[in-house]
Amino acid sequence: MFEDTWRTCSKSDSSGASNSGCESSKESSRSSTPVLDTDRTDRLRDKMRHRTESGDHWFSLEFFPPRTASGAVNLISRFDRMGSGGPLFIDVTWHPAGDPGSDKETSSMMIASTAVNYCGLESILHLTCCNQTKEKITGYLSKAKRLGLKNIMALRGDPMGADWEEEEAGFNYATDLVKHIRCEFDDYFDICVAGYPTGHPEAESYDEDLRHLKEKVDAGADFIITQLFFRADTFLKFVRDCRAIGITCPILPGIFPIQGYQSLRQLVKLSKLEVPEEIMQVIEPIKDNDAAIRNYGIEQAVSMCRVLLESGEVPGLHFYTLNREVATMEVLRQLGLWIEDPRRTLPWAVSAHPKRKVEDVRPIFWASRPKSYIYRTQDWDDFPNGRWGNSSSPAFGELNDYYLFYLKSKSSKDALLKMWGEELTSEQSVYEVFTSYITAQPNVAGHKVMCLPWNDDPLAPETNLLKDELDKVNRRGVLTINSQPSINGKPSSDPIVGWGPPGGYVFQKAYLEFFTSSENVTALLKVLKKYEPRVNYHIVNVHGQNTTNAHDMQPNAVTWGIFPGREIVQPTVVDPVSFLYWKDEAFALWIEQWAKLYEDESPSRMIIKYIHDNYFLVNLVDNDFPLDNCLWQVIDDMFELLDNPPEEQPAEQPAEQPNDEQSDKEQPGK
Amino acid sequence: MFEDTWRTCSKSDSSGASNSGCESSKESSRSSTPVLDTDRTDRLRDKMRHRTESGDHWFSLEFFPPRTASGAVNLISRFDRMGSGGPLFIDVTWHPAGDPGSDKETSSMMIASTAVNYCGLESILHLTCCNQTKEKITGYLSKAKRLGLKNIMALRGDPMGADWEEEEAGFNYATDLVKHIRCEFDDYFDICVAGYPTGHPEAESYDEDLRHLKEKVDAGADFIITQLFFRADTFLKFVRDCRAIGITCPILPGIFPIQGYQSLRQLVKLSKLEVPEEIMQVIEPIKDNDAAIRNYGIEQAVSMCRVLLESGEVPGLHFYTLNREVATMEVLRQLGLWIEDPRRTLPWAVSAHPKRKVEDVRPIFWASRPKSYIYRTQDWDDFPNGRWGNSSSPAFGELNDYYLFYLKSKSSKDALLKMWGEELTSEQSVYEVFTSYITAQPNVAGHKVMCLPWNDDPLAPETNLLKDELDKVNRRGVLTINSQPSINGKPSSDPIVGWGPPGGYVFQKAYLEFFTSSENVTALLKVLKKYEPRVNYHIVNVHGQNTTNAHDMQPNAVTWGIFPGREIVQPTVVDPVSFLYWKDEAFALWIEQWAKLYEDESPSRMIIKYIHDNYFLVNLVDNDFPLDNCLWQVIDDMFELLDNPPEEQPAEQPAEQPNDEQSDKEQPGK
Repeated sequence: MFEDTWRTCSKSDSSGASNSGCESSKESSRSSTPVLDTDRTDRLRDKMRHRTESGDHWFSLEFFPPRTASGAVNLISRFDRMGSGGPLFIDVTWHPAGDPGSDKETSSMMIASTAVNYCGLESILHLTCCNQTKEKITGYLSKAKRLGLKNIMALRGDPMGADWEEEEAGFNYATDLVKHIRCEFDDYFDICVAGYPTGHPEAESYDEDLRHLKEKVDAGADFIITQLFFRADTFLKFVRDCRAIGITCPILPGIFPIQGYQSLRQLVKLSKLEVPEEIMQVIEPIKDNDAAIRNYGIEQAVSMCRVLLESGEVPGLHFYTLNREVATMEVLRQLGLWIEDPRRTLPWAVSAHPKRKVEDVRPIFWASRPKSYIYRTQDWDDFPNGRWGNSSSPAFGELNDYYLFYLKSKSSKDALLKMWGEELTSEQSVYEVFTSYITAQPNVAGHKVMCLPWNDDPLAPETNLLKDELDKVNRRGVLTINSQPSINGKPSSDPIVGWGPPGGYVFQKAYLEFFTSSENVTALLKVLKKYEPRVNYHIVNVHGQNTTNAHDMQPNAVTWGIFPGREIVQPTVVDPVSFLYWKDEAFALWIEQWAKLYEDESPSRMIIKYIHDNYFLVNLVDNDFPLDNCLWQVIDDMFELLDNPPEEQPAEQPAEQPNDEQSDKEQPGK
Repeated sequence: MFEDTWRTCSKSDSSGASNSGCESSKESSRSSTPVLDTDRTDRLRDKMRHRTESGDHWFSLEFFPPRTASGAVNLISRFDRMGSGGPLFIDVTWHPAGDPGSDKETSSMMIASTAVNYCGLESILHLTCCNQTKEKITGYLSKAKRLGLKNIMALRGDPMGADWEEEEAGFNYATDLVKHIRCEFDDYFDICVAGYPTGHPEAESYDEDLRHLKEKVDAGADFIITQLFFRADTFLKFVRDCRAIGITCPILPGIFPIQGYQSLRQLVKLSKLEVPEEIMQVIEPIKDNDAAIRNYGIEQAVSMCRVLLESGEVPGLHFYTLNREVATMEVLRQLGLWIEDPRRTLPWAVSAHPKRKVEDVRPIFWASRPKSYIYRTQDWDDFPNGRWGNSSSPAFGELNDYYLFYLKSKSSKDALLKMWGEELTSEQSVYEVFTSYITAQPNVAGHKVMCLPWNDDPLAPETNLLKDELDKVNRRGVLTINSQPSINGKPSSDPIVGWGPPGGYVFQKAYLEFFTSSENVTALLKVLKKYEPRVNYHIVNVHGQNTTNAHDMQPNAVTWGIFPGREIVQPTVVDPVSFLYWKDEAFALWIEQWAKLYEDESPSRMIIKYIHDNYFLVNLVDNDFPLDNCLWQVIDDMFELLDNPPEEQPAEQPAEQPNDEQSDKEQPGK
């Protein structure tokens, strides 16, 4: 918070925002069928009101943009982890010196956009107006709107340099920015402003500062977040004083769990706040013991928050996280505000972009790469009807660049080499990497395999149910990258597989997706004839050679839910059209993430390249969801056929050999 | 067949159809998701080819338009019954003297349209061109296309009067009509023409007649149906002769089961056919014994059809039904062609109108009145997305006229009075009518109640499962008009509740809809509080006073199916918006069908009118489909509350009394 020079001006005259040139930018709302979560259609201020009226307590989290691209990748992982605890919103600070409105991975704008679009978090973008032209500010706001951001924290910001003076027609105060937003964008954005429980350090007086806060609210702000403070009484008095002069909007206390001696010192300097004597007395003696200070900080924050919540004046708490998670999460856990087992609205994370809120179906292929899916479909107009029918489908984004979430791993090259092998000696050594990942056992070099190119995270709890079977088949070169078990009507509240509103039932068809050799595919196709029409399959290689038994290329729903008073929800499909787009990405990951770890022409790289060039990507669906999953039996039958082939009939060439022209190519490492 | 003067001309020169002014009327095809029955998207000629290629035998049925409106109602019931046996198509003959292209209920055009739109039957409309202007013929064809008809039987027809002469620019031959259809409507219609196994009676020779048939096919006909014949050899020789001169299209034999002496005599006279001596020798001695003749006719038709089918030249049989069903059905049963247990594509009959083929969801309210539903939504543009959301919904057809299928009963006033009571003495006597209908037991006057205003047919087999419960509640004034049991994953092949393609599973939520008094509703609303959110309800009276616990007025899917390789199909919903349109119709049926049986101001009429004015229409859904249906328990709890009310609290007026202002009105018959 203090890093982004979050201040209002104390000067008395705060008019100046133009009221001319207003244009209404209200958007027509469009409703999807069925709406599972009424929150999804609400604005932040409405959600806040509903939660407050229901007597529910909630929390929000503040982050600042990282300095480096790898810092950005880590922060976004943190968004996912901290997002799972159920914050009402997060906010991202604005750093005028850091090109905050640019398209850089580390800009405030892109970090906030990522939180909304990829992590599905309701987000507030900070914006400072000091020393900015109206055109520039309008440009930032238009861009934010285009990216799906709906909430702005309107700040003055620090003057750049000591010789700053008020400009006649420019922005001198946060009030000017609030007025400008309302004028140019009507009621589109929810607007938040800053409050100072001890008065702004530059303000003439506490009362004068309160009057300026009232002006900001009167100009159109929807709620207030306060600067941090150290005593509950400070905040509670501030709220009383605000109410007394007619400020009626929500006022959220800014909570700062002390996390270390240095960061506290820096804070004191930047924010010109005084740390109370009783806190300094505790901290000074333990200033070299980080753990002790953090534990004290947690304890101090918890007890202060308890007083705030019990006062009845505080519906929610806003946390200055300093981009760290341990202390804030611990405070929230102790307060009982952290949602340990969040209810999922759909089996995948719903994007918070206003346009994507209505999205209600996705192909299963990107289940482990949702950010890539969102990136590739970001220009789609129509998500609720986002089918991929032959003629009606808008194209997927092209596979032509390397976006942050697209083909890069979040692990370093060194870490990847440790996990996936410094040196590969055969296809079998690739199989062993898959097996180590599945079983969570160390690989031959003693390192745990925490990710694969297709799976950036360890196995999901749901997939863990299949671990033994997955282990067995991966050892034999059925290299699984995605699977789900069948589910026949589990309650929507089930902690592992449940999703959607209470009182419902969720279902799944068993699904298995893997890479495997063309020899295996030849046997598999023979075996699959016994499983018609129970099992649907799609089999494709990198060249697009494609075999399927799908009806008319129709999508197959593999996850669905039945809920009280709703239509059926079917959020995950095996879609034949999108599979051919996924194929490009799935094969590219062999090369981009794995082969390129090794030197050109090295045996390791050639092994991965051979797999990329010759293996097939296979997906199987067992349609008979009430019965035991037969897909393992299909693979067993395939192995059985390979192990005990029927007597040779030399004159006959198997008709279903899908990759004949490749079969006599040299196979390295065999 | 002979009634519509179905003949081609034997004159040699059959040119004359204009080739100018052609316009393409190809329609863009639009695919729905998911397509359950690939047949639904095919043309008749494609279906015929698929069935023939598969080695399957099939049949079709010919009908003529009835003379009276009540005859039309009966014929349409026959369409439903005979349609259930699985004909590939039906055809409707054209009677130039009977205003065949008009909007009258009895016209050929309207009968064929009804078969397509309301009965979901693939249908061929006959059309004769003799003595017609091109404008008139084009007008008929345009109207047929507009009504959803896609197949035409192109005939010359009899000249009107003896002084007929060829017209220069008019239609003299069926060939002219075929050419005209292809010219004006491109490939839109499938065209059938007539063939004469013994030569046309007016033809110069058998060979000359064959050459004219070749001309008709060359002009664009897709297949041939023959005039009736009495010996299999006659037809098989005809087919050989057709093939010999290059006629390659399907040739369907016209089968006429002899059904009586008089109809056979009439046939002989009109068609100028000779009945073979071996048949006359059997028939003459039994000419006064109708049953014996019909049995002989069945036996003769079956043995001839067996020879035809075994020849390998005959993929399907076309039956001249004379609008009767017994003989034809018996022949088909003995041949094994009648489908005793037809597979339903969806739980309701799919309309065969090209525009409606993609329709995949309907409100449950019209389950027993599908024709009324189709009529009221006939002007909708968009059936597959036919949701009834608050803003997006097109209006239902207005309740402003009395169409054939709309508010009239197919029974006569006399029959209705016998079933529903010559004289009603109380509301209780109305309850007894409902109970008699449910239990299929005679009413107090000894008559079976075969229908109710809301149910034109006896109880469906599915509803029969609920008979005991329905009986119990109707006796106490819970007047049920629609219900379905819960189903938790029965195979799609289930003979009673199954629908959709094989290998799937069907599901239902329990549903119950009834009229009941405002006293009962007051108790019911108290009881329903215990069943939140398990039970959804909508309760409305004729004045539109409406109570519901539906989320945001969203539809609730109450029938759905899961199939191999498809998305989820959810064909039946409880839709809050459409319920308010259904309410108008459901209440109107009390007055239009029942009250109006009795004299103005008569006690019987006043009793029905009282119910109409004061009762509520209630629907209940039990969302917890895997558990036992709780809706009977809800009704039991309501009775329990009524029988044993909690102690009086005199000062308190029940808040949920929904119809308070009506409660002190005089109640006749109580």
